[in-house]
Amino acid sequence: MTSLPSSRPVVRLRPKAEARAIRHGFPWVYADELVLDRRTNALEPGALAVLEDGERRPMGLVTVNPKSKIVARMLDRDTGAALDRAWFEARLAHALALRERLYSEPFYRLVHAEADGFPGVVIDRFGDAAVIQPNAAWAEAHLDMLVAALQAVTGVGIVVKNGTGRARSLEGLTEETLVLKGALDGPVPVRMNGASYMADLTGGQKTGIFYDQRDNHAFAARLAKGGRVLDVFSHVGGFGLAALAAGAESALAVDGSEPALVLAERGAAAMGLAERFARRQGDAFETLEALQAEGERFELVVCDPPAFAPHRQALDAGLRAYERVARLAAPLVAPGGYLVLCSCSHAADLSQFRAASTRGIGKGGRRGQLIHTGFAGPDHPMLPQLAESGYLKSLAFRLD
Amino acid sequence: MTSLPSSRPVVRLRPKAEARAIRHGFPWVYADELVLDRRTNALEPGALAVLEDGERRPMGLVTVNPKSKIVARMLDRDTGAALDRAWFEARLAHALALRERLYSEPFYRLVHAEADGFPGVVIDRFGDAAVIQPNAAWAEAHLDMLVAALQAVTGVGIVVKNGTGRARSLEGLTEETLVLKGALDGPVPVRMNGASYMADLTGGQKTGIFYDQRDNHAFAARLAKGGRVLDVFSHVGGFGLAALAAGAESALAVDGSEPALVLAERGAAAMGLAERFARRQGDAFETLEALQAEGERFELVVCDPPAFAPHRQALDAGLRAYERVARLAAPLVAPGGYLVLCSCSHAADLSQFRAASTRGIGKGGRRGQLIHTGFAGPDHPMLPQLAESGYLKSLAFRLD
Repeated sequence: MTSLPSSRPVVRLRPKAEARAIRHGFPWVYADELVLDRRTNALEPGALAVLEDGERRPMGLVTVNPKSKIVARMLDRDTGAALDRAWFEARLAHALALRERLYSEPFYRLVHAEADGFPGVVIDRFGDAAVIQPNAAWAEAHLDMLVAALQAVTGVGIVVKNGTGRARSLEGLTEETLVLKGALDGPVPVRMNGASYMADLTGGQKTGIFYDQRDNHAFAARLAKGGRVLDVFSHVGGFGLAALAAGAESALAVDGSEPALVLAERGAAAMGLAERFARRQGDAFETLEALQAEGERFELVVCDPPAFAPHRQALDAGLRAYERVARLAAPLVAPGGYLVLCSCSHAADLSQFRAASTRGIGKGGRRGQLIHTGFAGPDHPMLPQLAESGYLKSLAFRLD
Repeated sequence: MTSLPSSRPVVRLRPKAEARAIRHGFPWVYADELVLDRRTNALEPGALAVLEDGERRPMGLVTVNPKSKIVARMLDRDTGAALDRAWFEARLAHALALRERLYSEPFYRLVHAEADGFPGVVIDRFGDAAVIQPNAAWAEAHLDMLVAALQAVTGVGIVVKNGTGRARSLEGLTEETLVLKGALDGPVPVRMNGASYMADLTGGQKTGIFYDQRDNHAFAARLAKGGRVLDVFSHVGGFGLAALAAGAESALAVDGSEPALVLAERGAAAMGLAERFARRQGDAFETLEALQAEGERFELVVCDPPAFAPHRQALDAGLRAYERVARLAAPLVAPGGYLVLCSCSHAADLSQFRAASTRGIGKGGRRGQLIHTGFAGPDHPMLPQLAESGYLKSLAFRLD
């Protein structure tokens, strides 16, 4: 699959295509911007090619997938770059340097796709283990080299390939999750914000934990000391266990997934705080209504649902769902308490999500101050040219 | 000035005015939304009145200023509320409770105007001292009661009135700065992010320090350890001293104000780190160019300029100035180093400021990742209904 720089095929932008954005750092070429002749259409998904502009000036080394809407992704501005072991190691070392500056322990997202120079590739690190999501054909094709470089640069002994999710099907890739290196002996402990989490690297959601919320967990935990905390859509206890670590009196985790709740409980036990932790399996909306009927109140309520508006077509329904979450959660907040609402929807921007949340709080009979707006943490860098699409938003309200 | 609830004048929304937003928490009535008859126009600036909608239904207690574009500001949804000592103490205690939860030491913005229930009023706390900016006529009129309540609730012995700035002239208020209670004996030490700052409460910019940047200082400081830091538009050393406290090798502060630089130097000396601190007085743009000519490089460069686009008319020129800052600063960043760019312009939104910064970095010959987007800290809460106008943005880039 590795191609010699000298023998690389050439793909070309259409004469009218906007070359300037790509020259200024935009990393993608859409299908309607490229000359899709017979030769280009015959390229194997993940093939490397030299991208030229309409005037045949070389722009960079791209990976081509004629089956994808994003038909080419920029790999290197140097058209002569060889995708050899040294290339992978240099990019991984650059990514590692940022994380080692930011974090004192090896628990973080190591590679966040385009912004780290690995289009479509996500790598999360869990101490001695790493989970790779090679969600682009070129990465699938270079997986052996990527894994070898990853082990050399980070020293991890365990490498898992997580080949699930919508991004893969858009690239025409099949689903597959397996342990490529080393062996896993159950869930892996993760230290973050003073809490202990248990991450299931092969059977859980995404790569096993949501590192992107780390800073928002930390902010919410500051509000939790001495209080009762409700953590809805808790997954493995992201917000709830951080709150317990910061001195919350109690945390009730609500999730639809029993296995996730069991992992959350194991995390609380590992922290020696099992007696302050409770879990309730069930539909989040129904549980919010039930807690209201039971007269429960909390000093901190957090709702971190899955993406209700993952794409544009789902936007209206998604915003209604966010409003409903806020409407059902607000009455559970004690007077002067805090409500943290999160969205990981690409399609709902900050302004829309904030408006839906504010409407919901109002319909829930409450008013409040917005004290914090957070995004994904710094181990989830963005290309500035793609920053409009920042997906994660976390809003912290203090209610009257 | 205190009015009895029973004898209050009534002001009324025009029939077509949008009452819904106000009912849902929007706190302002613009001049073109209110019936401005002879009686309303005769109201003294700062007078209290009952606001009614077009159908004469009472909406709340407002303060009226016929001379201001914002002709009425919501004070209390309870039209019968008395603005007595207890009213001021209750609101201040509510504001204090949030800050005491967030911060272990008494250095913060205690009151952030509308969102804390005090329209147009800002109060910053510096340990035993507080600075009040009563930038609305009602607050000027109730200043004695506000000061008495402030001392009772917080115990501060020193109270300064800072009556400067554009907001006051829009309200028809005169400029005046004086020490109302206690006595000041030079600059006040402020502890924040492990650093020591010196704040001039009577002669400095704004209230003496910029608490709004605290979280962005903290984020930048994480990037600074062991590195050389350039802090441009440093004021009293906000970013530079936080970086030194976090282990930066050196910090060079650049500002146009010699008194501000002297305060920054005194802060470094108070931290026992004077030998790592240097200052350079002068025009920021010229100094950036001079440093480039001198071949200087820094692991972290921060530019936190005054508002280049404080209002809509200044937007285009402001964005060009932000782009220029980025273009001149980017070449000073060592390979793999960090660039933090800030804007406190109301008129430039996040997307516009990010685009200008990204263009400038590109024109400065660099590329990079956006690793952090920060706003004002949680002691600067917002009404969700006014959140679009969030003024402060801080972007942290890592450059290749």
